[in-house]
Amino acid sequence: MIELKEHERIDDLQRNGYKIIQNSEKFCFGMDAVLLSAFARVKKTDKVLDLGTGTGIIPLLLHARNEGRYYAVEIQPEMAEMAQRSVSLNKLEEEITIIQEDLKEITNHFKRESMDVVVTNPPYMKGNHGLVNPKDAKAISRHEICATLDDVIETAALMLHENGRFYMVHRPFRLAEIISKMKEVRLEPKRMQLVYPFIDKEPNMVLIEGIKGAGSELKIDKPLIVYKTPGEYTEEILEIYG
Amino acid sequence: MIELKEHERIDDLQRNGYKIIQNSEKFCFGMDAVLLSAFARVKKTDKVLDLGTGTGIIPLLLHARNEGRYYAVEIQPEMAEMAQRSVSLNKLEEEITIIQEDLKEITNHFKRESMDVVVTNPPYMKGNHGLVNPKDAKAISRHEICATLDDVIETAALMLHENGRFYMVHRPFRLAEIISKMKEVRLEPKRMQLVYPFIDKEPNMVLIEGIKGAGSELKIDKPLIVYKTPGEYTEEILEIYG
Repeated sequence: MIELKEHERIDDLQRNGYKIIQNSEKFCFGMDAVLLSAFARVKKTDKVLDLGTGTGIIPLLLHARNEGRYYAVEIQPEMAEMAQRSVSLNKLEEEITIIQEDLKEITNHFKRESMDVVVTNPPYMKGNHGLVNPKDAKAISRHEICATLDDVIETAALMLHENGRFYMVHRPFRLAEIISKMKEVRLEPKRMQLVYPFIDKEPNMVLIEGIKGAGSELKIDKPLIVYKTPGEYTEEILEIYG
Repeated sequence: MIELKEHERIDDLQRNGYKIIQNSEKFCFGMDAVLLSAFARVKKTDKVLDLGTGTGIIPLLLHARNEGRYYAVEIQPEMAEMAQRSVSLNKLEEEITIIQEDLKEITNHFKRESMDVVVTNPPYMKGNHGLVNPKDAKAISRHEICATLDDVIETAALMLHENGRFYMVHRPFRLAEIISKMKEVRLEPKRMQLVYPFIDKEPNMVLIEGIKGAGSELKIDKPLIVYKTPGEYTEEILEIYG
């Protein structure tokens, strides 16, 4: 029996019967995690590292879709502990390992270049300007307090073997930094998709794939449009949510 | 009276009564030039450099929209001479100067950091692999025979003053190289738009603005969709064509 703490609830992931524990006072997963799990190509023989797993949503969704072996790093002890309870709730202790650690210290746990895939849904906002409480769990999930974009990309490059694959969801306003940093560390951007809330609006998410050591040629996918009309999802989105 | 050579014709640009001479055996301008001229922000007091002007289409379209003072470089003598006749045809000798020169030698003509704006619609294809005749005018317009993407971006950075603006149209498959090189030479990518032929297809053009020395934050515009149905332009495209 899994114990729930104050403000915690169990949500159904609508896939394989998997469930997740979330705390309504802290960061709850959004569409970004769902789109990333559909965008990433993972095979069942892959060793996959998730940088900054939070609730553990990405390995849960990816395992439900693809199987595979997951190692998920989370710096915040309470978040890591809650993610561990979600893993237990789904009886996935053999498939998903939660590691409470700073992602910059990941080589304490794994050999360099030992991963087939690295996925991440990192904090989107730069710095911690004007934050009332930078130790707050929501703030750490959204702002680059514990790790910067550069830290995340450098760690991914360090942990992937040659031809290993990197998948990230982020905000379009950071795209130039993302591409430039990825190329710098040889995570060549190979595929990208922009997510537009409506067909006549600016994109609010970008999904990107990098392949370590690949040649430079980027494929940009067709636009992913979220809503047909306000409140009404497009067919593509309904299909991703299954 | 302007003389036409074999295979040359005069086309109406549908703007300000401007006309252009094109040679149906050589490279004729496409939608990319038209979209770039609508995407670029040019003021009438700006000094604008066009790298690889070909027929002179970009300065003609930009002048028709914004006025301004143009310097347009073209390496191929016959193309430069034809562009010069188009300038004369429109009586724009005071506004548009055609320079027959290799863009890598542009400092023979202008001081460094002397331009407000640099625009370019460069060759899209890498190298000249498998080309039957790399001296052919069409090949030079399409393939990186005389100048590479890096040459173009480096020259733009050299010629723009701080806060000067760079505008380029290119193919999406080169986007990672473009962004990475622009950041390397401090032409910070600030605005970008992807052009999708249809709403459910991959993009086939990217428009990008860089500002020399600016901070890193990229704005990605709403998608530019070309066709509603095969052969039927969207309202946006009709508006751009005026």
